[in-house]
Amino acid sequence: MSDKTGSAQIGVVGMAVMGSNLARNFASKGFKTAIFNRTYAKTEDVLAAHPEAGFVASESVEEFVDSLEKPRRIIMMVKAGPATDATIDALLPHLDQGDIIVDGGNTYFPDTRRREKKLSELGFNFIGCGISGGETGALLGPSMMPGGPKDSYAHIGPILEKVAAQYDGEPCCTWIGPDGAGHFVKMVHNGIEYADMQFIGEAYDLLKGAGLSATEAADVFAQWNTGDLDSYLIEITSEVLRQVDARTGKPLVDVVVDAAGMKGTGTWTVMESLNLGVPAAAIAEAVFARAASSSPELRAAAQAALQGPDGTINTDDRDAFVADVRQALWCAKVIAYAQGLHLIKVAGQQYGWDIDVAACARIWRAGCIIRAKLLDRISNEYAAGNLETLLEAPSISAELANCNDAWRRVVAKASEAGVPIPGFSSALSYYDLVRAKRTNAALTQGLRDFFGSHTYRRVDTDGTFHTQWSGDRSEVEAVDSH
Amino acid sequence: MSDKTGSAQIGVVGMAVMGSNLARNFASKGFKTAIFNRTYAKTEDVLAAHPEAGFVASESVEEFVDSLEKPRRIIMMVKAGPATDATIDALLPHLDQGDIIVDGGNTYFPDTRRREKKLSELGFNFIGCGISGGETGALLGPSMMPGGPKDSYAHIGPILEKVAAQYDGEPCCTWIGPDGAGHFVKMVHNGIEYADMQFIGEAYDLLKGAGLSATEAADVFAQWNTGDLDSYLIEITSEVLRQVDARTGKPLVDVVVDAAGMKGTGTWTVMESLNLGVPAAAIAEAVFARAASSSPELRAAAQAALQGPDGTINTDDRDAFVADVRQALWCAKVIAYAQGLHLIKVAGQQYGWDIDVAACARIWRAGCIIRAKLLDRISNEYAAGNLETLLEAPSISAELANCNDAWRRVVAKASEAGVPIPGFSSALSYYDLVRAKRTNAALTQGLRDFFGSHTYRRVDTDGTFHTQWSGDRSEVEAVDSH
Repeated sequence: MSDKTGSAQIGVVGMAVMGSNLARNFASKGFKTAIFNRTYAKTEDVLAAHPEAGFVASESVEEFVDSLEKPRRIIMMVKAGPATDATIDALLPHLDQGDIIVDGGNTYFPDTRRREKKLSELGFNFIGCGISGGETGALLGPSMMPGGPKDSYAHIGPILEKVAAQYDGEPCCTWIGPDGAGHFVKMVHNGIEYADMQFIGEAYDLLKGAGLSATEAADVFAQWNTGDLDSYLIEITSEVLRQVDARTGKPLVDVVVDAAGMKGTGTWTVMESLNLGVPAAAIAEAVFARAASSSPELRAAAQAALQGPDGTINTDDRDAFVADVRQALWCAKVIAYAQGLHLIKVAGQQYGWDIDVAACARIWRAGCIIRAKLLDRISNEYAAGNLETLLEAPSISAELANCNDAWRRVVAKASEAGVPIPGFSSALSYYDLVRAKRTNAALTQGLRDFFGSHTYRRVDTDGTFHTQWSGDRSEVEAVDSH
Repeated sequence: MSDKTGSAQIGVVGMAVMGSNLARNFASKGFKTAIFNRTYAKTEDVLAAHPEAGFVASESVEEFVDSLEKPRRIIMMVKAGPATDATIDALLPHLDQGDIIVDGGNTYFPDTRRREKKLSELGFNFIGCGISGGETGALLGPSMMPGGPKDSYAHIGPILEKVAAQYDGEPCCTWIGPDGAGHFVKMVHNGIEYADMQFIGEAYDLLKGAGLSATEAADVFAQWNTGDLDSYLIEITSEVLRQVDARTGKPLVDVVVDAAGMKGTGTWTVMESLNLGVPAAAIAEAVFARAASSSPELRAAAQAALQGPDGTINTDDRDAFVADVRQALWCAKVIAYAQGLHLIKVAGQQYGWDIDVAACARIWRAGCIIRAKLLDRISNEYAAGNLETLLEAPSISAELANCNDAWRRVVAKASEAGVPIPGFSSALSYYDLVRAKRTNAALTQGLRDFFGSHTYRRVDTDGTFHTQWSGDRSEVEAVDSH
């Protein structure tokens, strides 16, 4: 038994920037923190750079595990995928029953479900914890979304809540639900983030179309950030637009290649919404817009062949137009939150997670990328009533009622001017689709019955019916649909 | 050896309506056809109902297999899923090397890949064949999309081509590519079908909004069916809208519940487009619109809470508006084809299928649900040149140039009137997005670099760069992105 045996309260595996920053965060909150990395050189770098942290460092897994007090608390900050399984396999032989492993990576939630099942059968506690906030968040306080065995949260939760971001004295961390619930909620967080960024991009295109320079647009975003739209992404949009490229003297945004990358979580969100039959097209449009931006052959061919207006927006009153864009952006943003939170609600029912949607919005108020003033209101609205959709929350529906004319004007103007607005228009169609008393789905059912005998229901009576389209066109009751 | 040994040229397994109709189709083209069903009673019903077909019927699998000439040709028309595997397992012990099994069901293409691999290792030929056209198509000539070992197509292709629909003397059947290629193309066919139906529904909503009755709308669709939009779905839309409900005297479309069903292929198409990074948002919007229509709790909550215009479209010149809607419908339809065919092209490269896109369009000209006059032109355009996207085909881009103003007017009017048009507007944004010289993806990359150090590329030099946002904001070259 070495003198460091059982000396650390928490251990972090993986000393890349997210892991080392999180470890520094633990240390700065007064937790004795053990650190480990597959290659010791990286651990040594971290030790040398941050002597103030008082890390307990180990060269071997055995030593690292031994340095932790029991039940052990270990947070893995490794690249999601095979490295996660490899790390678990390396740790397991040295752990005791009841020890807690937290996966803090961007893991696809079915993987978390699989791992949690396997480890709980072996007597260990496995927590999948979504962490948002990037490197700075990890260091200063991220938003944390842990899911796993509820009773193990008593051992790890208070520590996580200390290092998480705080909003009005409340930690941006709470137990989300069993097994994959935490990673699921983090996935949806990222899906909403995709939509948020797409909407911001569309707003910028519209401002540009109306003749604003990047700097003028930066001023507009900065001003928006003082009101309803107050949020991290709006704030940094202003920063990015204001940035001047040192080489060319142009706005940086004009010299960056317009091909957006992505790392999977947005795509997963859309796949899950398809899986669960939850309409989330605004998020899907954001993902597809990134895919389009990164399709150089498609774009080159289309650019050479297609004609249309050039994106210039003629406006008699530019200030009024800018104000309209602000309202459109707010409305679209609300739709993305509504779609994402609806997805969480349905998934909570489907996977047996019983997720508190209000709590999700609450822990997104600080620390994470989509942090926004609006989330405080959303959290309160969900806490106040059992909402089927965010859109029915009184303060939300009232503001949508006020803003939707501006939103419509913006979509109309952009469509006529040739500014691509897949997000704004998809969100508006969602708004109009879910509130419609009757939709064209009745015609769809008629067509499906015509060509495939898929049957339909009637508004005035129970049962399933089929019109004998290729016969005398009389209606018959169907025994079952096929 | 019974007297029927080796007497039949082709065998059909599964005597539900698609299977029995296809068997009747084979028989009517002069092929001696063996039939089999798990329960013999159904086979007896088919025999009794269609004595003219001269079917060779068997009670047992052994007998059925024995009744076929070698190499045997067997088409399974069973419900996609476990029944497919069960049928294969039942057949295998009685087959000889080189025999051909065709799966004519709506199978998810990865399942076809798996089965083809397994069966080819065992020495059998397995063909996954998408079949479109519904019951009538199966009987009178469907569109057929077979994929599998190319050399086996010599044994089965000529028979399939005889029973397939014919267009100007050309069969609507051709070898698509190896393993899952045929079922993949059928899946995309269905995805396009979803979009086509959504656009038609939006057009109907717009006509309704402009004051047309269902019967008047039926007349409009009938008239459209004589021009550029000539297609099966437009034709039957007119039929469905004209149908009067016998019970109420109202248009049938007004008494059908507006909740659209779906069976998976549309969803798969969108998932695959996400998987392959191919933008196909118009198809996604169609799938999500069905999901929204079938979300009663969401709709009830939204209907109660949300305000906005009621979908009435004020128009000075109704005929001009109807003409605009026709052009918008044509444009949107072209976008859905472009997205679907692009997906097929990329999948062909990705999965090593080397699919002839022109041939896909060619075999969709008759027999299938999306059959349309436009497909002849599309097929010719793809045959004439190696298109990256349908949109660059000269005759297509020219007509889009002519029509896109009308399309824009329709999207603008619908957006202001509160008519949900997720398909029309998504298609328009795709058009404007892929032709844009610069997109907001540059801003997205700036934001991603700001909050996650994801780096960006520059338009004026190679390499990957990062701005030190939390430092002095100078730019550094990044070693690799992370």
